[in-house]
Amino acid sequence: MNCFEAFQVKSGSKVQLDKIDASFKDCYKNREEAQPVIDKLDERIRAQQYLMYAEHKRSLLICLQGRDASGKDGTINHVLGAMNPQGCTVTSFKQPSKEEAAHDFLWRCHKVTPAQGHVAIFNRSHYEDVLIQRVHNMVPESIWSKRYDHINHFEQLLADHNTLVLKFFLHIDADEQLKRFKQRIDDPSKHWKISESDYTEASYWDAYTQAFEDILKKCSYSHAPWFVIPANHKWFRNLAIASIVADAMESLKMTFPKPSVDINEIKRKYHQLDKKELQEGLINTLPSKNK
Amino acid sequence: MNCFEAFQVKSGSKVQLDKIDASFKDCYKNREEAQPVIDKLDERIRAQQYLMYAEHKRSLLICLQGRDASGKDGTINHVLGAMNPQGCTVTSFKQPSKEEAAHDFLWRCHKVTPAQGHVAIFNRSHYEDVLIQRVHNMVPESIWSKRYDHINHFEQLLADHNTLVLKFFLHIDADEQLKRFKQRIDDPSKHWKISESDYTEASYWDAYTQAFEDILKKCSYSHAPWFVIPANHKWFRNLAIASIVADAMESLKMTFPKPSVDINEIKRKYHQLDKKELQEGLINTLPSKNK
Repeated sequence: MNCFEAFQVKSGSKVQLDKIDASFKDCYKNREEAQPVIDKLDERIRAQQYLMYAEHKRSLLICLQGRDASGKDGTINHVLGAMNPQGCTVTSFKQPSKEEAAHDFLWRCHKVTPAQGHVAIFNRSHYEDVLIQRVHNMVPESIWSKRYDHINHFEQLLADHNTLVLKFFLHIDADEQLKRFKQRIDDPSKHWKISESDYTEASYWDAYTQAFEDILKKCSYSHAPWFVIPANHKWFRNLAIASIVADAMESLKMTFPKPSVDINEIKRKYHQLDKKELQEGLINTLPSKNK
Repeated sequence: MNCFEAFQVKSGSKVQLDKIDASFKDCYKNREEAQPVIDKLDERIRAQQYLMYAEHKRSLLICLQGRDASGKDGTINHVLGAMNPQGCTVTSFKQPSKEEAAHDFLWRCHKVTPAQGHVAIFNRSHYEDVLIQRVHNMVPESIWSKRYDHINHFEQLLADHNTLVLKFFLHIDADEQLKRFKQRIDDPSKHWKISESDYTEASYWDAYTQAFEDILKKCSYSHAPWFVIPANHKWFRNLAIASIVADAMESLKMTFPKPSVDINEIKRKYHQLDKKELQEGLINTLPSKNK
């Protein structure tokens, strides 16, 4: 199936999350069956990222959102595993610092958008400001209700600067979330990061559903689409996202820049010398058509 | 062999790079034989980095230096491949920007040192300011000669803030460098990054040797040691560096922080509920000893 088409939220359309099967896994029986497909997708992403870095004209911003334990960290490990870390940055948006809170809500995100040739991954993002802030009434509706427009204008600005913006909602259901919380409890190396708020947040399940559905309806555009990814199966989540990223990057039809030097001239000038001649600087006495 | 001991530059000792075999590969015949060893080292690094992130008390700074084509990029791909990218940053130090050049030479490096719990990798580093700047007389000796002390003080400051500083010189010989330049010429997907300066820099081989040897003599301390890594064989380079990083991190004897909540209490309170009760917020009516 074409994941890009299948999971993309069409602009302005109403998504009902509880109607979407979070355990969907297409035609695959299990992880083993999917792995060769994932490996090939990773190869395509690796090649495209190298090309993006070389071309130095476009950039890619990946935003990951989802409930607690929906797999944002695992997704980042997988997507980045397919990329050269030198062309990538990951930013985790947590509770705003004092300095961040003293600016508009897009300020801290804008600072870390990807430069030409680079990939940036947002672990949570500017969408937190219409999620947790809305659900917990941290700002009044008169404030958060204006933010959807600000977000759309911001993403349009990025797109106009040749940034491909891909936004993924990792869709798990409540049973899966509870199962993952239990796995944390059973793993002593994870106890340090358990907090009571993981559980108390779960009681806001419906309020978050409403907030996510509003985002999907108001902020999905062809230049910055949202995708709802069935994420109960971690391997299918990885497959779907890798497939969308690979397709989207290839659709940019990027090309290698022309060499800045004449490769044949370089061959003639330097690769007929031995290392001693190179080191002794004889090269400087050779004629060069570039000088 | 113990790579940490074998390749560490003892404080104040004189290193003669041309006496060190860049093709050294210990007892290993080839990459295939070394791979299982490398895989185990990567596992140890992965575990240690998770622990560092959880403990949130210490940090790790890895500096990579070496001549053109010595494998800095490849090393980063390998070391980072063993780590969770969210706890890591990579900074490549290129020609200073106007803003950077308007500050002291350590300014741009200090900004990107690792926070507690994090790992930072420097692709080139503050040592460029006693390498290229010295070799090409970009600043007078009266300036660069003072920088060794500044560097030592800076690294002492980091060490005093519980930053483990590990510095690797990737040692290749001139034959290997020329071989790698030829491989670039033979690979069309690499033509875009070939520049004539790769070749003209090679004529400064001896001046760089001198500059590297001075660094190794003046700036290797037990709190921030230099290692000279035989790097003609990429797989041996990876093995040696992974071994040093794993040993050094384990020597910190890091431990998981205590959970901020009472795990048994969490189990009792939440994991006997079903998801519906959780969502309906019944939890808020349960007695909690934390409240």
